[in-house]
Formats: sequence, structure tokens, C-alpha cells
Amino acid sequence: MSGSFEAIAWEVSDSVGMLSFNRPEHFNGMTNGMIREFYELLTDVANDSSVAVIILTGTGKAFCPGADLKHYSSGQKDEPLRAENFLVPVLLHEMPQVTIAAINGACAGAGFGYAMACDLRYAARGAKLNTAFLDVAVAGDMGVPWTLPRIVGAGRARELSLLPRKIDADEAAGMNLVNAVFEPDQLMNEVRDRATRIAEAAPLARRGMKQHYVEAEGLSYREFINIETERHMRISQSQDTQEAFLAFVEKRRARYVGR
Amino acid sequence: MSGSFEAIAWEVSDSVGMLSFNRPEHFNGMTNGMIREFYELLTDVANDSSVAVIILTGTGKAFCPGADLKHYSSGQKDEPLRAENFLVPVLLHEMPQVTIAAINGACAGAGFGYAMACDLRYAARGAKLNTAFLDVAVAGDMGVPWTLPRIVGAGRARELSLLPRKIDADEAAGMNLVNAVFEPDQLMNEVRDRATRIAEAAPLARRGMKQHYVEAEGLSYREFINIETERHMRISQSQDTQEAFLAFVEKRRARYVGR
Amino acid sequence: MSGSFEAIAWEVSDSVGMLSFNRPEHFNGMTNGMIREFYELLTDVANDSSVAVIILTGTGKAFCPGADLKHYSSGQKDEPLRAENFLVPVLLHEMPQVTIAAINGACAGAGFGYAMACDLRYAARGAKLNTAFLDVAVAGDMGVPWTLPRIVGAGRARELSLLPRKIDADEAAGMNLVNAVFEPDQLMNEVRDRATRIAEAAPLARRGMKQHYVEAEGLSYREFINIETERHMRISQSQDTQEAFLAFVEKRRARYVGR
Repeated sequence: MSGSFEAIAWEVSDSVGMLSFNRPEHFNGMTNGMIREFYELLTDVANDSSVAVIILTGTGKAFCPGADLKHYSSGQKDEPLRAENFLVPVLLHEMPQVTIAAINGACAGAGFGYAMACDLRYAARGAKLNTAFLDVAVAGDMGVPWTLPRIVGAGRARELSLLPRKIDADEAAGMNLVNAVFEPDQLMNEVRDRATRIAEAAPLARRGMKQHYVEAEGLSYREFINIETERHMRISQSQDTQEAFLAFVEKRRARYVGR
Repeated sequence: MSGSFEAIAWEVSDSVGMLSFNRPEHFNGMTNGMIREFYELLTDVANDSSVAVIILTGTGKAFCPGADLKHYSSGQKDEPLRAENFLVPVLLHEMPQVTIAAINGACAGAGFGYAMACDLRYAARGAKLNTAFLDVAVAGDMGVPWTLPRIVGAGRARELSLLPRKIDADEAAGMNLVNAVFEPDQLMNEVRDRATRIAEAAPLARRGMKQHYVEAEGLSYREFINIETERHMRISQSQDTQEAFLAFVEKRRARYVGR
Repeated sequence: MSGSFEAIAWEVSDSVGMLSFNRPEHFNGMTNGMIREFYELLTDVANDSSVAVIILTGTGKAFCPGADLKHYSSGQKDEPLRAENFLVPVLLHEMPQVTIAAINGACAGAGFGYAMACDLRYAARGAKLNTAFLDVAVAGDMGVPWTLPRIVGAGRARELSLLPRKIDADEAAGMNLVNAVFEPDQLMNEVRDRATRIAEAAPLARRGMKQHYVEAEGLSYREFINIETERHMRISQSQDTQEAFLAFVEKRRARYVGR
């Protein structure tokens, strides 16, 4: 699929997909066309079991500062959005692949919403994060009031949304908004190392783990454990689990076959 | 409405309402009458769109140390409480106004419950917070087991409730129990600055943001984003949002009209 | 019941039950038999109102490193597990007793799951915690994807599960994974002090508090406050609450009778 998009970029190697906001001449500001491209790509990739992990990042200096306000206030013609296109964060959050935001620079508004939808977040030292919405007279889209309290707690989340400000990457790590901070020239190496490690995990277990986390959000503890137990029993009988147990006892690296 | 209450005080200026526990001669200990007055006032204010933000604080040295135990154990006559009066925290949490606790001093028991119900919490250096309930042989009212885990996490919350102790304001900030701590003589200035900034935000967006946060608590991610998208589309077409986008591009301050 | 188990140990004194993973010759690795014994014991204890608090710990050097992989990969005969046996974490989390994990050493996999199910967690300095599941090709059982995000937040939890590693006790405390860390030779004293304090609280209030926390997980704020208010009104009329209020005013220690 690589190369067929205008506002995003997509490239896969070794089961890790690199997905980029790709309007560097506009600091990766979002347009309706970009949102639609994200939706179409992620809908496809969700069904592609050869992709294990997705890294979401930005081309050039910015991650994504949110809507391209210049574009939207210019009266320029843009394609209309369909309601389903707003489900991009749900895809990032619930698709079988593990999703990681590599926040290389400015991350605000809808871009912040996409980052919060991912499973994991790593930031470049010096990158700035900002909910931003209320400062431009919108309540916001892309699910921040749902994800943010679950990541940083209810009180902290409301403060970030009601009193928007630029949060430096290191402060963001201190409040669990991102998992860790790396030097800008190390960010992609560090994120890729983690993506590779996750991609090399046993596929049934990795996908089961992602499903566990998604389902646990909407069930009671008892209901969740019932579903988790069924899946655990099934995965435990796989060849890969037998191999992993044996490799552990024999103190060697396991070799997985995906079943 | 200012002045017509016995146990609370209420005053509005510039769209910010100041709501005070007001029994300073009893360190603002709660009585049934006080709870009823809170309920009646907040029910009214919830329908008053001229109030944008509410600051909850205490007259004198204390915020609110919870039930006035001397009063309740004296056998003194008090009015009976109606079940609906216990919904004061639900009002603070769900009403259209943004609610901020300015914790000027001792904050415990039901007073702690009211503080946790607010959207934001700021404390004076040296103020003490305490769940307190189990130490006086009650499981507690005012919703702490619901709000506290969402603010500080499930393990920390249970410890605060099962092993009650006085938490100093600075320790409270370290565990996200309050958003920040200020010197006692600066607390009200700092809180008022924040309240004013929120009150000056575009009204449709501010109220939409509060609703976003309330609704996100009870919906799945997908259900929430569907509702959020509808509201976002509607607010985005408002005059205020158009003005905000333009002001951003023109690097000037936006002027809002509330529609 | 003390002494009638093979893989666990159980002993009660002063209303505090000490429950131990008890296969020290195998570092307390879990077997199907051990899981069944936990299930049977906890089902019984849940109905025993003479036990107020349960401390979960490990005999010898380890807490519980999870499944005994040597055992499971040896082809050795083991009893089959029933689905209900996987509800041990639900019992620890929802039973009327307050449950405390005293993490004396290695805590991983299913052992980690049991620890996260408890109300409170304290660890010995130097103890290592590890989700571990994905490293042995399973998505995991025992409810970690449900409990962990509620304890440490959604982003941190996913990182601990997707990139398993040994977390030192002090780092664990820094991320709220455990409530506090004590020197190894002080751990059991410190935990027992806390258990005793909780066991000496007024019984109706203590059990009501545990129920509050369990019910608050599955209800809206309003629904929870309605249920909480009913329970609060009932408990408040107990002899113990009257005594506690009076003792507070008279600045003396309360004497509880359990009604």
C-alpha cells in the first residue's frame, strides 16, 4: 500500500508498520483528507496479520499539532468527513496490532487524541504536548476525555483539558502521559527496538494480550476473568506455548511458529 | 441568592461563583441543614447559564472536616435528610459548570467527598486531607470509593480509605489527590485566576468539554466517540469557533459571543 | 482449617488470616492443585465473619513466580482445573475480608495476578515483580489486564504487559504498583500492624467500606451514591457508630461490639 496516499505515509518492514502524518510543509496539520486516509489504511491493516506492530509518528519536525487551522479557516475546498472517519482512535486502540506513538515533536489537539489512543507513547526530549481544544473554542474530538483520565487520572486529565498548556516531554513522562522520553536522535531507534521485541513475541499470545486489554475496559472483573480464562486455555495448548515453557526450562531462546 | 443561607455562603462575580462552607465557629462541620442548603443552591445554579465556574471553599481556617460530630452526638434536634440531598457530589461532578475545590484547610470525611467530586482541586500549603470515615465507624457517604480510585488509582485509594491518616497538601499533590499546592495567602488568587481563564473560554466549548468528561465515564470508547463527534460537529459550526480559528491564524485574541 | 493443605498454608490469629503460597522447595511455583486449594479455602473464608483481614504471602524466599513451568513442561500428571478455580482473584478482590499482599520475594505471572487482585500491596526491598506472561507465549490469566490499568494507569499497564521485565520493589512503589516498600526483615511486622489496625476497625463499617469499593467499580456515580447512602444510613444507626462519635468528642478510644 506504500506510497498511494497524499497526507500520510505507510511502510512495513519485519512486521512493523511505520505510519506517518505526512504534510511536513504544513507541520503535519490535519485535514479531512488526511483523516480519511488514516481511516482507510487502518481498516485495511486491521485485517493484515502480517503486521504485528504499528508505529505512529510525524514526517519532519512535528508529530501532529491537530487540525490545520490555516486550511480550515481559509475557506479552501476540502472533502466532507463521514462520521466513521472519526473512529480512527478506536481503530488504533482496538485493532489486533499493538500501536505505539513515537512523538517526535509538536503533538496537540486531534494529534494528541491519536497519540492517547495508542497502546504506548514515547516522546523525544523537548517535544511539547497540548490538549489545545478549549483554546480554539472546541470541546474536542478524537476521544481525549475518554482516554486521558484512564492514562493520567481523572483530576489531572480535567486540568489538562480545561487549562490547556504546552507540556514538555519530561513533565509528560512524570505524569505518565508518555511512557518514556529519549533524545531526539535516539527516539526512533528506541521505539523500533521495542516494536521489534513485541513483534517477535508469540503471535497468538500477543494478539490475545491486546484483546485482553480492550475487553477488560468494558466488563466486570468476573466477566473478564471468564473470557480471559477461555482464551488462556486455548492459547496454552498452542505449540508456541509448549515451546516457550520448554525453552524456559532449558534456558534457551524459544522459536515460534504462530500456532 | 447571596446571603439567604445559614450554613453556606454564595456570591457570584464575573461568572465565577464562590461557594463556602460557612459555619466557621464550628470549623465548618457539616449538619443536615448545610447539606440541604448545598443541594438546593446547586440545583438552582445548574440551571443558571450566567455562572460558568464554581469555587468551593471554607470560611475561616477550615475547608470542611466532615460531619460536625459534636452536633450529631449531642442529641440536638436537626432536620431530617432526604435521600436526594446526598446527591450534592453528583451535582458538583455533573452540573454544566466547572467546579474547583480551593482547599484552604482541614478537609475530611464528607468534606473530602465534596472536594473529590469537583473537577479540579487546589490546596493551601499545610492543609491536611483525610478520608477519616473508618476511624469514626462509618463506611462513608458522598462517593469517595467512586471518585478516589479514578483520581489516584485503585491501590492508593483503598489505602487512604482503609488506613485513614492526615495527608499533608504537598504529599497530596505528589499522589495527584490535588492538582497543585499554593502558599495559603496565594491560594485564592491562584484559584481565581484559573477560574477566570476557564470562565472566559468559549461557552459552548466549555460546557461541551464538561459534558464530554461526564459522558466518557459511562460509555465504551466507540460509543463515546460517536457522541463526541456529533457535539464536535455542532460546536465547530458556531460563530465562536470560526472566530477562534481566525484569531489563531491572525495571532490575536478571540472575542466570543456565546453562540 | 490450618494444616490440611498441600501447596498452601493457612493460619488465623486475632482475626487476621495468614495465607501462604507453600511450595518453598519449588519457589512456590503454581500447580493446578495449588490453585484449587486457594479456591476452596477462600470460598470457605468468605463466609467466616471471624476473619477480618487476609495477608497473602510466600513461604521461604519467593512470593510466587507464577506457574511452575518445570512441572507443567515435564508431562507430570496433575489434576484438571475447573473454570471456577480461575476465580481466585475475584474472591481476593470481592470477598468481605480486606486482602493484603505481602510481597516477600519474586512475584510474577499468575502470582503477580493474585497480588494485583488484593486490596493493598506491600513489598520487601529488593523483591522483583514481573507480569512475565508474554515472555512465555501466553496472554495470561488471573485478571492482570483488568486490575493493572486501574492501579497504575492504562499506558503504564500496557507497557508492563507488552514489554515484560523485572520491576524492583522501589520502582514498583514509585509507579503505585505497591503501596510501600519495607526492609525484608520488617515487611511482615509492618503488614501485620496494618492488618491489625484494619481488623480492629468497627466491623460493619469495615465490611461496608470493602463493599463500597467493589460496587463503585460497576456503577455510575449516581447509582453508586444511591446504594452508598442506604448503607451509610443503616451503619450510622449502629451502636458502634454512636460510640465512635461519642469517643471522638470525649477524646478517648472507642470500644466496638460489632453491631
